[in-house]
Amino acid sequence: MTQHTPYHSFSIQSAAAGRRPTAMDLVESVLRSRREGRLPAGARLPPVRAIERQLGVSKNTVQSAYDELVARGVCVAREREGVFVAHDAAEREAIVSRSAAAPRVVATPALSGPAPSDAIKLSSVFIDPALLPRERLADCARSVLRTPGLDAFYDPQGYAPLRAQIAERLSARAMAVDPSQVIITTGSQQALDIVVRALATRRVAVEDPVYSHARFLFENLGATLSPLRLDPFEGIDLDGWRAVIERDAPSLLYSITRFQNPTGYSYQPHELDALLALSERTAMGLLEDDWGSDMLSDGDYRPTLRALGGDNVLYANSFTKKLLPSLRVGYLVAPRALVPTLVAMKRLSTLGNPWLTEAVLSEFLDRGYYDTHLRAVQAALDARYARCLEALSARMPEGCRWTLPGGGPTLWLEVPRSVDVQRLSAQMAARGVNIESAAAHFAGARHLNGFRVSYAFVGEADLDRALTILGNELREAMR
Amino acid sequence: MTQHTPYHSFSIQSAAAGRRPTAMDLVESVLRSRREGRLPAGARLPPVRAIERQLGVSKNTVQSAYDELVARGVCVAREREGVFVAHDAAEREAIVSRSAAAPRVVATPALSGPAPSDAIKLSSVFIDPALLPRERLADCARSVLRTPGLDAFYDPQGYAPLRAQIAERLSARAMAVDPSQVIITTGSQQALDIVVRALATRRVAVEDPVYSHARFLFENLGATLSPLRLDPFEGIDLDGWRAVIERDAPSLLYSITRFQNPTGYSYQPHELDALLALSERTAMGLLEDDWGSDMLSDGDYRPTLRALGGDNVLYANSFTKKLLPSLRVGYLVAPRALVPTLVAMKRLSTLGNPWLTEAVLSEFLDRGYYDTHLRAVQAALDARYARCLEALSARMPEGCRWTLPGGGPTLWLEVPRSVDVQRLSAQMAARGVNIESAAAHFAGARHLNGFRVSYAFVGEADLDRALTILGNELREAMR
Repeated sequence: MTQHTPYHSFSIQSAAAGRRPTAMDLVESVLRSRREGRLPAGARLPPVRAIERQLGVSKNTVQSAYDELVARGVCVAREREGVFVAHDAAEREAIVSRSAAAPRVVATPALSGPAPSDAIKLSSVFIDPALLPRERLADCARSVLRTPGLDAFYDPQGYAPLRAQIAERLSARAMAVDPSQVIITTGSQQALDIVVRALATRRVAVEDPVYSHARFLFENLGATLSPLRLDPFEGIDLDGWRAVIERDAPSLLYSITRFQNPTGYSYQPHELDALLALSERTAMGLLEDDWGSDMLSDGDYRPTLRALGGDNVLYANSFTKKLLPSLRVGYLVAPRALVPTLVAMKRLSTLGNPWLTEAVLSEFLDRGYYDTHLRAVQAALDARYARCLEALSARMPEGCRWTLPGGGPTLWLEVPRSVDVQRLSAQMAARGVNIESAAAHFAGARHLNGFRVSYAFVGEADLDRALTILGNELREAMR
Repeated sequence: MTQHTPYHSFSIQSAAAGRRPTAMDLVESVLRSRREGRLPAGARLPPVRAIERQLGVSKNTVQSAYDELVARGVCVAREREGVFVAHDAAEREAIVSRSAAAPRVVATPALSGPAPSDAIKLSSVFIDPALLPRERLADCARSVLRTPGLDAFYDPQGYAPLRAQIAERLSARAMAVDPSQVIITTGSQQALDIVVRALATRRVAVEDPVYSHARFLFENLGATLSPLRLDPFEGIDLDGWRAVIERDAPSLLYSITRFQNPTGYSYQPHELDALLALSERTAMGLLEDDWGSDMLSDGDYRPTLRALGGDNVLYANSFTKKLLPSLRVGYLVAPRALVPTLVAMKRLSTLGNPWLTEAVLSEFLDRGYYDTHLRAVQAALDARYARCLEALSARMPEGCRWTLPGGGPTLWLEVPRSVDVQRLSAQMAARGVNIESAAAHFAGARHLNGFRVSYAFVGEADLDRALTILGNELREAMR
């Protein structure tokens, strides 16, 4: 006979082997288990129907056994809950007064919070929602829901047609990428997360100032950071970077090669080349974050680390900023040998991402909407960039300077050392303009004194108003 | 005059202060920057229009300066790319031969891979897709796309109406939860991720065997694990658990209180109570994973750690398994004081999750579809459970035993010690049946010799076929 060990923790035996247990067998079994300490106070007995199914005894037999146990005070029946081994009064008291301990947690990282919704967000890295194709995305979603229906499962690496489309787009930009090398992520943030999780040694070189979410992420994953000073007016001090990298031997360099966050700096080809040489020589991996090039009207013709350095360069990009933040679709392109480990890291983090949004994006790309959209965004940003430069020339007091990225979403405005940017930020907030003081971006000494000016998010009228206010506040601060 | 520092790394000066620079000024500026080492080979000069905008000189002036530089061999013009400081031949050669180093990564964790798609997946933790309301979800998606349109942004904590609905549902199950305590996550996996990231000390007590994705996740986050032996036939050895917890002082206990993965064990009320007492006494936090109770037809009436222990218990649950895996929506309920840190951890990991899927789920809940769906799933699982018990009784050889969870998705089948489960798994695979050997689930010594039998995923005919094959293979193995 098959040996059943019953519902969680009590064992039923017939008095006679091979025969179905009687009600008394059940009662005896409970009493025995109780004596042996295997049915403590509070333990729930199996539901009547479970025993019924298991042993083939009738519902009535089980019910009368339970009634008997309740009558003897061994058990209590709780309506709609079942039958439980009885507690004594002291035990019941203890349950009522329980209050678990909360775990101790780390300090909350100083991530930038949302600005008041009516403020002009002069430092936003987002694109003006008015420029985003929400209706066309909704069209694609309707189409996806009509034709193949919702898939029940997800591919942990990401929706295969979308991976193929991404590989094709990158190949057209001189990056030879196979769909099997593409891992879809929740924005590019998850791409950074899974790469650093996967590192055998978590030592990461970062630009300084660095994208603060990346910095806090790497720190949270226990990485040791090597800050590499970046001055957007001077370009990269390659000798300085080489010295730090040779000293610290980081396992990875994380760099945003276009519109570096927060400085807006774009790497020069000779700088990319020097980093590739350093990677080769020091066995330091490269993680290139290329969020910005799609926003530049000549971005297709600018080389990337991935284009110059080939397969071994890890390359992250995202549709979120340029298409729709709430879509949360980014991707990572990885060396073939690293893909299984990186997909495993993604599975540890989120298992996979929603099928629906990936399918909607795939439809959007398939219809050619994304290229149309990018051209429109680029034209709008070119125009806004020109207006921003005009307004800066007209409104900023002497002693201020700004980078000239040639278009795209954002530039860096540097103000004189005498200006306290933190204080300026508070004063601007009082006037309804939000600027980011950038303090959290510095992993090393704070060698710049400025902030992002984003013409991508702010419309032309607001931009002019915000820069007028900024000019006045700066003049005040510099007095 | 405002000081412009130009495109990345070269500085333009007029011969006469206050006058617009001439073409010769531009040429001289480039030559000077080149001499001073600030314009290395490969550096790109600013686009013509950027200088035009910046200095107000005409396009023609800039163009003739650039033509002059190209003519002198100082620069090269590349069609559609721009004007670059010239490389010599040796430098060009070097660029072409660059190949970056790939970073060294950790060993890939032994996560279970996908079973062949035509295999009967006897150990799956998913629900049969035939039971999932895909058409109703598509209806809700169409409605969401019609009425409010796509939101451009996402709430990092999760879509507010969905958080309110979750809080209300939990409150109806004796868990007093405020919407501000709910954090939407990408499945419950992300809930585990953000909790362990947030721990001040990453020492985690886990059931043994433990849900293997949780184990690998915690290890990847650098946590020290304390395995707590769990025998689904014997219940929890509370004295043993107490001893380990007092010795190791973990900062958190992670437990799956219903249908523990992989054993299918459900905690008894007195066991929950004992863990709450331990938490109070040792300041160990509790993270309860309650994925299973919604699948049990009497699950509403079973207490949880969160219901008994109140606010300080961290509580994770998910809609993915029960509703649609590809939706990837789970949630975490946290003590109020911990919410800001936990939301920050989510932002570090993924910034936020797609708005669309959260809005679709909210609509689905709002229409009452989820309750209807759960009742249908519970009825189907009850029936499958009964069939599974029948088939086990009929097919399993003597010496096998299985748990009786009373319904839900899965039970644990224990086979005699003489059977090599790894080998059995290979033999079953050859016969078209996938079972999980569970080796990866053991953080400590492997004290069980069995695997999950999931009646939730496998239809009745397949289940009977699979168990017939299993019975035969087991008899073979036990010979």
